[in-house]
Amino acid sequence: MTFTPTDYLPYDFANRRHIGPSPAEMDAMLQVVGAKDLDALIDDTLPPKIRQKAPLDFGKAKSERELLHHMRVTASKNRVLTSLIGQGYHGTVTPPAIQRNILENPAWYTAYTPYQPEISQGRLEALLNYQTMISDLTGLDIANASLLDEATACAEAMTMAQRISKSKQPGFFVDENCHPQNIAVMRTRAQPLGIEIVVGNPDTLDPTQVFGAIFQYPGTHGHIRDFTPEIAKLHENKAIGVVSADPLSLTLLKEPGAMGADIAVGTTQRFGVPIGYGGPHAAYMATKASYARNMPGRIVGVSVDSHGNRAYRLSLQTREQHIRREKATSNVCTAQALLAVMAGFYAVFHGPEGLKAIAQRIHRKTARLAEGLKQAGFAVRPASFFDTITVDVGPLQAAVIKSALDEGINLRAVGTTQVGITLDERTRPATIEGVWRAFGIDRKDKDYTPHYQMPEKLIRTTDFLTHPVFHMNRAETEMMRYMRRLADRDLALDRAMIPLGSCTMKLNAAAEMMPVSWREFSQLHPFCPKDQAAGYTEMIDDLSAKLCDITGYDAISMQPNSGAQGEYAGLLTIASYHRANGQGHRNICLIPMSAHGTNPASAQMVGWKVVPVKSAENGDIDVADYKAKVAEHKDNLAGCMITYPSTHGVFEETVIEVCKITHAAGGQVYIDGANMNAMVGLSRPGDLGGDVSHLNLHKTFCIPHGGGGPGMGPIGVKDHLIAHLPGDPNDGEGAVSAAPYGSPSLLPISWAYCLMMGGEGLTQATRVAILNANYIAKRLEGAFDVLYKGPSGRVAHECIIDTRPFADSAGVTVDDIAKRLSDCGFHAPTMSWPVAGTLMIEPTESETKAELDRFCDAMLGIRDEIRAIEDGAMDPLNNPLKNAPHTMEDLVKDWDRPYTRETGCFPPGAFRVDKYWPPVNRVDNVWGDRNLTCTCPPMTDYAEAAE
Amino acid sequence: MTFTPTDYLPYDFANRRHIGPSPAEMDAMLQVVGAKDLDALIDDTLPPKIRQKAPLDFGKAKSERELLHHMRVTASKNRVLTSLIGQGYHGTVTPPAIQRNILENPAWYTAYTPYQPEISQGRLEALLNYQTMISDLTGLDIANASLLDEATACAEAMTMAQRISKSKQPGFFVDENCHPQNIAVMRTRAQPLGIEIVVGNPDTLDPTQVFGAIFQYPGTHGHIRDFTPEIAKLHENKAIGVVSADPLSLTLLKEPGAMGADIAVGTTQRFGVPIGYGGPHAAYMATKASYARNMPGRIVGVSVDSHGNRAYRLSLQTREQHIRREKATSNVCTAQALLAVMAGFYAVFHGPEGLKAIAQRIHRKTARLAEGLKQAGFAVRPASFFDTITVDVGPLQAAVIKSALDEGINLRAVGTTQVGITLDERTRPATIEGVWRAFGIDRKDKDYTPHYQMPEKLIRTTDFLTHPVFHMNRAETEMMRYMRRLADRDLALDRAMIPLGSCTMKLNAAAEMMPVSWREFSQLHPFCPKDQAAGYTEMIDDLSAKLCDITGYDAISMQPNSGAQGEYAGLLTIASYHRANGQGHRNICLIPMSAHGTNPASAQMVGWKVVPVKSAENGDIDVADYKAKVAEHKDNLAGCMITYPSTHGVFEETVIEVCKITHAAGGQVYIDGANMNAMVGLSRPGDLGGDVSHLNLHKTFCIPHGGGGPGMGPIGVKDHLIAHLPGDPNDGEGAVSAAPYGSPSLLPISWAYCLMMGGEGLTQATRVAILNANYIAKRLEGAFDVLYKGPSGRVAHECIIDTRPFADSAGVTVDDIAKRLSDCGFHAPTMSWPVAGTLMIEPTESETKAELDRFCDAMLGIRDEIRAIEDGAMDPLNNPLKNAPHTMEDLVKDWDRPYTRETGCFPPGAFRVDKYWPPVNRVDNVWGDRNLTCTCPPMTDYAEAAE
Repeated sequence: MTFTPTDYLPYDFANRRHIGPSPAEMDAMLQVVGAKDLDALIDDTLPPKIRQKAPLDFGKAKSERELLHHMRVTASKNRVLTSLIGQGYHGTVTPPAIQRNILENPAWYTAYTPYQPEISQGRLEALLNYQTMISDLTGLDIANASLLDEATACAEAMTMAQRISKSKQPGFFVDENCHPQNIAVMRTRAQPLGIEIVVGNPDTLDPTQVFGAIFQYPGTHGHIRDFTPEIAKLHENKAIGVVSADPLSLTLLKEPGAMGADIAVGTTQRFGVPIGYGGPHAAYMATKASYARNMPGRIVGVSVDSHGNRAYRLSLQTREQHIRREKATSNVCTAQALLAVMAGFYAVFHGPEGLKAIAQRIHRKTARLAEGLKQAGFAVRPASFFDTITVDVGPLQAAVIKSALDEGINLRAVGTTQVGITLDERTRPATIEGVWRAFGIDRKDKDYTPHYQMPEKLIRTTDFLTHPVFHMNRAETEMMRYMRRLADRDLALDRAMIPLGSCTMKLNAAAEMMPVSWREFSQLHPFCPKDQAAGYTEMIDDLSAKLCDITGYDAISMQPNSGAQGEYAGLLTIASYHRANGQGHRNICLIPMSAHGTNPASAQMVGWKVVPVKSAENGDIDVADYKAKVAEHKDNLAGCMITYPSTHGVFEETVIEVCKITHAAGGQVYIDGANMNAMVGLSRPGDLGGDVSHLNLHKTFCIPHGGGGPGMGPIGVKDHLIAHLPGDPNDGEGAVSAAPYGSPSLLPISWAYCLMMGGEGLTQATRVAILNANYIAKRLEGAFDVLYKGPSGRVAHECIIDTRPFADSAGVTVDDIAKRLSDCGFHAPTMSWPVAGTLMIEPTESETKAELDRFCDAMLGIRDEIRAIEDGAMDPLNNPLKNAPHTMEDLVKDWDRPYTRETGCFPPGAFRVDKYWPPVNRVDNVWGDRNLTCTCPPMTDYAEAAE
Repeated sequence: MTFTPTDYLPYDFANRRHIGPSPAEMDAMLQVVGAKDLDALIDDTLPPKIRQKAPLDFGKAKSERELLHHMRVTASKNRVLTSLIGQGYHGTVTPPAIQRNILENPAWYTAYTPYQPEISQGRLEALLNYQTMISDLTGLDIANASLLDEATACAEAMTMAQRISKSKQPGFFVDENCHPQNIAVMRTRAQPLGIEIVVGNPDTLDPTQVFGAIFQYPGTHGHIRDFTPEIAKLHENKAIGVVSADPLSLTLLKEPGAMGADIAVGTTQRFGVPIGYGGPHAAYMATKASYARNMPGRIVGVSVDSHGNRAYRLSLQTREQHIRREKATSNVCTAQALLAVMAGFYAVFHGPEGLKAIAQRIHRKTARLAEGLKQAGFAVRPASFFDTITVDVGPLQAAVIKSALDEGINLRAVGTTQVGITLDERTRPATIEGVWRAFGIDRKDKDYTPHYQMPEKLIRTTDFLTHPVFHMNRAETEMMRYMRRLADRDLALDRAMIPLGSCTMKLNAAAEMMPVSWREFSQLHPFCPKDQAAGYTEMIDDLSAKLCDITGYDAISMQPNSGAQGEYAGLLTIASYHRANGQGHRNICLIPMSAHGTNPASAQMVGWKVVPVKSAENGDIDVADYKAKVAEHKDNLAGCMITYPSTHGVFEETVIEVCKITHAAGGQVYIDGANMNAMVGLSRPGDLGGDVSHLNLHKTFCIPHGGGGPGMGPIGVKDHLIAHLPGDPNDGEGAVSAAPYGSPSLLPISWAYCLMMGGEGLTQATRVAILNANYIAKRLEGAFDVLYKGPSGRVAHECIIDTRPFADSAGVTVDDIAKRLSDCGFHAPTMSWPVAGTLMIEPTESETKAELDRFCDAMLGIRDEIRAIEDGAMDPLNNPLKNAPHTMEDLVKDWDRPYTRETGCFPPGAFRVDKYWPPVNRVDNVWGDRNLTCTCPPMTDYAEAAE
């Protein structure tokens, strides 16, 4: 008898695991959508001329098991040495409870940015803890909820200083002891904005020539000094003082606030976040209260809900770049929320005493190390230090570094005759002895108490982390339960669809996430010798090749660590190209009205002038207007920024024409890759005429949103732009991030996704994403108007529904609908963007028919409620929509509403037993902004809340 | 300036992370307790003469980071080869989503056995899925929720067969093709019970001489045959047919039920559970409906709650050994719940088509492997097989095995001239080619479809896994959410204290759990060459040495994989010792009335006669009665089983005397180690006079309970018993478990605990456990009577409170109080054990003062409610206690109760925002047992529930 194999594709293949609807469900959905099959639907949706010619082919897709094996082989090509390179990156111990319960827990890593505060109270509290920690450590009034990395934080501080300084000087002084990558990124940022950077010794600072200055503390080579006099001089000249400080050192050293600093920045990497070959980690920024409204990035604040109970939410959102558009001088959009949460919990875990003890141990070890070196006759600098020393070795620099390598230790080459050594929380006596051996010293490290190598006047005298959260019982049981309680307050992808238009909240598969925690990926220093990172190199090369195949570009830079950063890097690339061709004067950038707010902000940042282009009635680019604008600005046209498919969710046929017009006028085309999830395998921006695009790896390529970051925004470019890509931040031109590859420890996720899906699976994902969106559009038809369909009546991977009519008919706003969806157990779709009063829904391919139906049921139920108001059957002010979201407290209290508890709390779509309860009622944003509090509430409030 | 180091112990040291109350909290608690300091309290509690002389000293305790480093070094000494040894252990792929969301998720692994069904609906559903899977695959009516391992399952099947068979024959036939470890464990079990085991070829079975027979399917060397005729012959002779079957093979092969088998057993290890050098994995047992009440182990069943809604719970609990006592023929107490949940989810993930595809791929590969060998001239047996073949290699056995080793492959030595090869889900073409090369064959493995090597009549013709849960959408998004929903329905340690007397629900620290997932621990075969497991050997040796230090014994056997198994193994050791000394007639075992139910059951199982000893009024052993019983049975006294501190939670001073009396009469002393958490570092059973004890590593040594298993019950013995410890199940006498070290992949947890605590930390944990119990006792004083205090008025690590008075005064039962605690967000303490109508509370050292207070507040609130009934202020039948637990549904429905929603749902202790809601009202146990359903409810019910 012969064997009849089943044709059943086992479920350990990701292309089945990733794609929500089963084949049978897809058939049912196609019937509803009215398409013969998926091919027909796709043919309806994507115009033939924009379709890619050859199918994506990456060979056989890997099963989960094959993938993990492949990852292990690749990982093993990275060699994990002990890196004492420092330069802003430090060994750290991630408390296992944080690793397991935060970093590896989908309740935390799959959450979206907390724009819907009622269903984000858990991570808002965690981020508030983080802000409080930063504010306390730096001695400044207010901190944001993190920035991308220390170098971009320095650059943001520089531009913020320019905004707030009353000095009109064009100069910005940069301490020569700043980390090289910080200087590099500030240089990049300064150039297009006309800021003149002066690098020098703080002693040479001329405060009359600058609008601000930045100092590194401790300096990159270990120096510590008090910048109080310099900052005072700056202030006398209306200039701004910025200090980039290691937050761990601030547990021992005088804080920037006490020096008078206006802004402090730095990285919280060493607060329990693995180095990861450069990222992701959370950079911080803190400032004085008076400058709060000028600070970039997200700020969590305290407000009240509609019942007057305390509630957290993002404050001062009107500052955000995405609504400033042409006026922006920052395009910061995402944060490093997950990493900030980890760093905040690290502080909660250790408390002030614990952090101080860690810092003291490090200092003690460094002092012992230095003493050993000095006693052996080496010249060790500086005299005062925290964790970093520099040793003079003359012509033997290479020999010492090689000798250390043999001990399994990476040291830093400083200049040509010195060696830098930075110790950290992981340093063991064996490491110190290894360093000594590298210097030819045979000595045992004993735990004695050496002289304190910090000047008396630089010792911190103020308290920090005094808030009860940093003094709660730190037993693991308590910590674990605190993390769980916070997680449970939030609604993330592990419980429900997050149908956010343009944000592509898709599955972050467990198999993809696993390698992120492996030490071969997590423990490498970004500036370690290349040969130690051979696995990374192999991965980056292969992933780049695949992304080139997917996009039709010729090269990829992995450096930008957010989508907005990618835009900025892409435009810099174009600007550099123009300059190289003697066209440096080109500075006009055409951007359609419907563009994402980061587009104009990014253009501003490269010094371009934004010229808006009209949208046609159907949301497409108005080609006539486009032509007119090109004609008008022909000689100065730098390029254009367009989104494809458009932010209206439509595949415009005219895209090719628009690109041609632009090229004909000497401009370059930037195609925003935010919507790549609608294109992969079907259409390539490079083929459409794009010269450069960024890819949101955290959207299309499965990196989780982490509750508001991390992100990765690599850019793809055509051949002619390759020479103009960002350089190595350690020694190159045009760096945009602190680390050469941005946040490379995330790349295993995207690589794993590509390897497990294969070309066919990736293409199928795109097709199903389009099916899912069209299914929702169809099911909501009649109840809601779907704006912006393509000529054949199809939408792309998202659909925009119009809620404006309900304002007149029932007094119901888009906000009411969004909050009511929380009652149904859903995160709201993107609100009022790109069109005010609309909801943009993107289900992604990961959602099953059942979940799509649950969502549609919820939306239709809401429509019924609106109708009841329209019909007079429901009170126009006291109804489930206006009172949404409903909490458990509402249920237990006396119920004097004109609708039942059942109607209020269990609308269509809501689970019963598994009901998600928003912990607070609707949050009052205005109150919070008027009564700004952006650190943890005081102890008294806290005690009440604990009840 | 010199450096003043903080004396603050950083929190990465486990002995601070493990211990709940902070030093300040301890001070406050000591005040309440009325003790000067902790030393004084301990002196009050433990009589001087039972205190150990020297403090525990394991050197410096390791920090989490040092621990993980040490673990990595140890792990690296294990070499992970590809094991094709088979023999019941198979390579398998754990779906990453299951690994992350179940195995590594405290919501699942910290849960207790689902005795409180209202707060355990999630894992009860998961276990019901498992039972349904087993029932379907075996073709039998009812399955239990798992047994310890396949070998003990075989032994349980044997004794069950004896119970249900109407044949009076003493013989039990064992198929010679059974795995050696199954035969070994059955032999051990048979001997004391007088069962005569006959091992032979099924063709030689004489059904008139036996009460039952067991067949292995497929056989250990790969044979597959239809046992229908043998079972028919057995039935003609009123004997019972048992089949031990590989469940994966049953997706292709005729199922045991179709052969007429009465019982089927086997292991579900290859359903996604890593081999782990032998365990833990879930063994299964299934039987006909008519034998349901005779089946050992836990059985999840379907019942209704007080509102008539469907609810799951453990059914037929009256069968459980712990209430059968002297009549028991099984002492099975725990299950392998966590592993059964994983195996069940594996089936949900793959569905019937997926499982079948996996089985077919394995078979196809095995057939190709065999074909390659045959074509090269090797004699391959059997002709029909599933995944295992045996190859004749004559005198070259060692050479071939060595040659395979060089390829990184372990093969099985069969006899002296054959080699066994078993393929599995992980087998890749490269592995097959490696095997060929080991046989000197140079051949490429191509994926073609070879002849089907199974006889037509053995092909399965019936459906399986037809229930909707095995056909739900299997996209990872859906699976992840299903796992989360189930987890959220349960109350585990990650949300609240589980104050179970005698069950020691303490912290399972993340750092301890991490190494369990490492492949160096998880991927070893239990019968791999010893030198590949050098890391395991080192760990086992060191942990054994530490446990000897802790207990005062001279050697440890890690083999027993549950506490009850440990008791049994301990008694076997004593029995063997008596036999060796010509005292084989000694068969009287003295057991105090207050003993745990497993004690008499275990004694029964070694063929001893249990003689109960009275308890004195205060719960202590009645020494006079003890002396009298010893005198009466002097010549036949095998020994005694006592628990220390007693199950009443008191350190009896008389223990030493009791041991002396026993020894004087020629008996041996078994000290039950269930309460070791009250002794570690303070008192050693070996010093008190114990000859043998078991240790519950899943209680005292941090292995998580997993929702009802895994467990580990190693035994410690004095010198004179070492020679009588359990032998290697592969080739030794007296094996009690399938694998030499039981469930060794759990040992990193206990080892890590010891290494991170150090001797001092372990001792402090004991002291704080005693403080916590005394604090609760003190806070509840006045409201509840605390039974059984020591002479100084202290309790040990647990306290028993009396609820019997409330039955008369208010009609309130212990059940009412337990269920009301669910409303407060707590798992109930142990109910009605060791004394009916009481609650036994053990907080463990891991709980903080805040959590202890929350619990005491809850208990005092309950007392107030009882008082309100007593006073007539509350209705005696319609009150919060009788209606507990309250669900969200109660809150949303019309409320016609004589108390408020607030009173009903938010009693003292309950969180507000973070409120835990039991998903069902009080479960009706009687209804469920009368209407027994132990597989997933039918589709119609399912559809309703989905709503």
